[in-house]
Amino acid sequence: MQKDFINIPTLAVVGPGLIGGSVAAALKKANAVKHVVGVGSDQADLNMAQSLGLIDTVASLPHAAAQADIILLATPVGAMPSLLKELKKHLHENCIVTDVGSTKKNIVHQAEKILQDSFNQFVPAHPIAGAEKTGPKAASSKLFDGKNVVLTPTNKTNKTAQEEVVKMWVACGARVLVMSPNEHDEILASVSHVPHFLSSVYMWQVASAFNSDLRLTLAGTGFQDFTRIAAGSAEVWRDIFLSNKEAVLNELKQVQKAFAHAEKTLIESDERALYDFLEKAALARRLWASRSGYGE
Amino acid sequence: MQKDFINIPTLAVVGPGLIGGSVAAALKKANAVKHVVGVGSDQADLNMAQSLGLIDTVASLPHAAAQADIILLATPVGAMPSLLKELKKHLHENCIVTDVGSTKKNIVHQAEKILQDSFNQFVPAHPIAGAEKTGPKAASSKLFDGKNVVLTPTNKTNKTAQEEVVKMWVACGARVLVMSPNEHDEILASVSHVPHFLSSVYMWQVASAFNSDLRLTLAGTGFQDFTRIAAGSAEVWRDIFLSNKEAVLNELKQVQKAFAHAEKTLIESDERALYDFLEKAALARRLWASRSGYGE
Repeated sequence: MQKDFINIPTLAVVGPGLIGGSVAAALKKANAVKHVVGVGSDQADLNMAQSLGLIDTVASLPHAAAQADIILLATPVGAMPSLLKELKKHLHENCIVTDVGSTKKNIVHQAEKILQDSFNQFVPAHPIAGAEKTGPKAASSKLFDGKNVVLTPTNKTNKTAQEEVVKMWVACGARVLVMSPNEHDEILASVSHVPHFLSSVYMWQVASAFNSDLRLTLAGTGFQDFTRIAAGSAEVWRDIFLSNKEAVLNELKQVQKAFAHAEKTLIESDERALYDFLEKAALARRLWASRSGYGE
Repeated sequence: MQKDFINIPTLAVVGPGLIGGSVAAALKKANAVKHVVGVGSDQADLNMAQSLGLIDTVASLPHAAAQADIILLATPVGAMPSLLKELKKHLHENCIVTDVGSTKKNIVHQAEKILQDSFNQFVPAHPIAGAEKTGPKAASSKLFDGKNVVLTPTNKTNKTAQEEVVKMWVACGARVLVMSPNEHDEILASVSHVPHFLSSVYMWQVASAFNSDLRLTLAGTGFQDFTRIAAGSAEVWRDIFLSNKEAVLNELKQVQKAFAHAEKTLIESDERALYDFLEKAALARRLWASRSGYGE
């Protein structure tokens, strides 16, 4: 077998929705998996995933764990503890467990506590892709093309298991970065969780105003872009905020400091300082658009 | 001539960029204008507008004012006072003056002071469309299709002039709303200026962080949407903020109150209250998407 090539005999996807289903689709397309078994609590979603060819068979968690070489946990963050507890009872020692959770410190901590001597088999991961849609119907083999996946191993993580998970994501078309769970959570608090928080606060404030109907009639494309993320699942985002509470609150404090400075430039009609902050933001955003591959 | 039909013999467009050029293009397409004369300080833009067929001829402001039936001021807000002063010297009494400025109270105040006994010829207007791109190349005859245009007349505004400007915008495909300059500015502070302020503050804060490169590497589509408006022209937005300072600062205070409530739900890990605020925001955003015609 080639160093960078992977062919997973059996992959179990717990929660074959947008992310889990897309991993399965990408691995199948790359010829990197033989058999995908789906596990889930929503029978309609499982049927859909099977009819779309994302998964080959459906099984309970114990049966899937008995067969699988890699188990991918692709459920909302809040469901992880009970899943890991159930999994602990059935996990065989050659099975790799990995996840796609949006926060990592909390999950790693829970996994260590719950999996105990099997914790070395767990490779924590977070693909930065497609949080807007949900369900197996939205799954695509191209979802991870050129996207970043962050692995957050600890010093206990089995190196071979980690390498297999790297290969799995590379086969999906992704770029893999490795950092500590703590660093991951601080950075994601900044670039993902705080924007969602601010967009939701703003949307809620506008919708609560006495003249919200008239306001919303005059809202245009700027409003549309700025509030798009606020339409996301309240359940998913509540779980994310709670599981990354400390980093989010710290980052919100930094944003408040920047806000206070910017507000002061306006209060004082300080044209130069107001322009400077707007121009720095504009330049940074334009640079990001040209460098990131995301575009405008 | 039909009541709702307009055929402008000569329209002068001061600043034939995205907005001014799109008005000219839309009126030409609707057969609602005979001749468009372009006025501007940027010769390259004027040449471009002429070669694109947006304007038929180029003239100085005095010459354009002598010919025009309607003068459309489509320059950044900050350039308005000096333009109005120059225009005052050359304005004939049958000419209608209108604008496209993003803030209205300040412009109306300046126009009244500068135009004096000609102030009744000025019909203040603001089309809610396409603030992201600039220049004549971005102009489109479809820019205002189904979009809102707000007129903010005063009790001195000539009613016939106002009706002509309504007809002009209807010919461009837009929907016309009428409100006071004050109400317009308060509402736009909420749905346009505050989102831009927050997006810029956030973008600036991320770009100023010691590890901004790593942060920006992990930024995804949510970040992209939330910060898109922050790439806008610092000059244009500085002028908008300064000319609508009071309403923007008032609205920012309301956002801060909402922020404090939302932050408290997270500090206290109040799952229910955190969910409630996120869910209200999500429902409001989804409703707006389905009703506004903008979509997701």
